[in-house]
Amino acid sequence: MEKKKNISMAVIKRLPKYHRYLNELLNNDVDRISSKELGEKIGFTASQIRQDLNCFGDFGQQGYGYNVRELTNQISTILGLDKEYNAIIIGAGNIGQAIANYTRFGKMSFNLKAIFDANPKLLGMRIRDVEIQDIDNLESFLSNNSVDVGVICVPRINAQKVCDTLVRGGVKGIWNFAPVDLAVPDEVTVENVHLSESLLTLIYLLHDKNDKIK
Amino acid sequence: MEKKKNISMAVIKRLPKYHRYLNELLNNDVDRISSKELGEKIGFTASQIRQDLNCFGDFGQQGYGYNVRELTNQISTILGLDKEYNAIIIGAGNIGQAIANYTRFGKMSFNLKAIFDANPKLLGMRIRDVEIQDIDNLESFLSNNSVDVGVICVPRINAQKVCDTLVRGGVKGIWNFAPVDLAVPDEVTVENVHLSESLLTLIYLLHDKNDKIK
Repeated sequence: MEKKKNISMAVIKRLPKYHRYLNELLNNDVDRISSKELGEKIGFTASQIRQDLNCFGDFGQQGYGYNVRELTNQISTILGLDKEYNAIIIGAGNIGQAIANYTRFGKMSFNLKAIFDANPKLLGMRIRDVEIQDIDNLESFLSNNSVDVGVICVPRINAQKVCDTLVRGGVKGIWNFAPVDLAVPDEVTVENVHLSESLLTLIYLLHDKNDKIK
Repeated sequence: MEKKKNISMAVIKRLPKYHRYLNELLNNDVDRISSKELGEKIGFTASQIRQDLNCFGDFGQQGYGYNVRELTNQISTILGLDKEYNAIIIGAGNIGQAIANYTRFGKMSFNLKAIFDANPKLLGMRIRDVEIQDIDNLESFLSNNSVDVGVICVPRINAQKVCDTLVRGGVKGIWNFAPVDLAVPDEVTVENVHLSESLLTLIYLLHDKNDKIK
C-alpha cells in the first residue's frame, strides 16, 4: 500500500470517522458499499471520499465499490490500530477515572499500564485492575517500562511539569485533558481535549443562533 | 459593539482560546497587552489576532494595545458568558459523572439542574447536590423546566433517542459525548466531543511520526 506524503490534517481528522462508520457497517453485515452510499451515511460527497482514501492507496473498484471488511482493515492499519500501545494516566480525578473506566479504548489497542495521582486518598485504589500509584513513582516507572501514550488529567498548573517528566521518560504521545497548551519537542505529538473550550463554543453558537432567530 | 455577520467557524473556535489566555493574564495582574505579545503567548501572529478580534468590533488602541480586563469582558460577552445556562446530563456513567463533578463549568454560567440515568443502582445518588433521576422522568422534566443545554453521555445506541426527546422538549444546545453523529433540526446546535476519534488521531500521528523517524 503506497501512502502519499504530507497528508493534510483535515484528511487525518476524518479517518477516525471513516473507521467508526465502516465498523458500524461491518456490525450490520454490510459487505460492500459505493463511495456515494458511504458519503450519504457520513455526510461527505462521494468525490471527497474517493479523494480522501486515495491519499492512502488504491482502494475500491470502479462499479463495484468498496469491500467493507477490506477497507476497514486497511483504515485500521493506516490508523496504526494493528499495533499495541502502552498508556498511562496521570491524574485520577473525575476525567482520569472516566478515561480509565472507558472499556472502549481497550478495543483500540490501548493498554492501560498504570495510573498516577498525588492524592494519598486515591493511592492503592484499583480501576479495571490497574492500581493508582503515587505520582512520585512516575519517573522510575518510565525508566523501567516502555510507554507510548501519557494521558494528562492533572490540574492546569501541574500539566506542563507532568508533560516534561513524560517527555524525559521517552513518551512520544500525549493525550492532554488539562486546559493548557503544552510545550513539547518536535518528536512528541500532543492531542488536546479541551472540554471547557468545547462547551464555550457550544454556548457561543447557541447564543448567536438565538440572537439571529429573535 | 458591532458584530460582523457570518463569522467563520475557524474564528469562533479560536475565541475560547483567547478567553482562556486573557483570564490567565488577568490572574497574573497584567493590565494591558499588545497584539504582538498576545500572539506570542497564544501562538498566533499579531495580524491574525487583530483580524480575529476585528470580526467582533473595534478593540484595542494603536500604540497602546489591549486593555486586558476590558477585552476579557468583551470576549465573555461575545461568547455569551454574561447569561446563565441551565443544563442537564443524560447518562451518569463515567463521563457523565466526570462532567457533573467538573466544578470549572460552574464558573462558565453553566448551571447543572438535573442528571438522568436508566440504571436503578444510580438513582437517588447525588453529585454536587444534584440527584440522579430515572430517565423516564426526562420528558416531564423538560415540560416543567427550561433547559438550554443537554449533555448526552449515554451509550451510542441510545443517543439519538435521547437527543430526539431533548429536541422535542425545547433544548437548543446538545453537548454530545456519544460516539455518533446526531440528526437534529436546524435550530438546534450540536457540539461533539468524540473521545475515541481524538485518541485515534493521536495514535495515527504517533505511528506516522515513528515511521518517518525510522
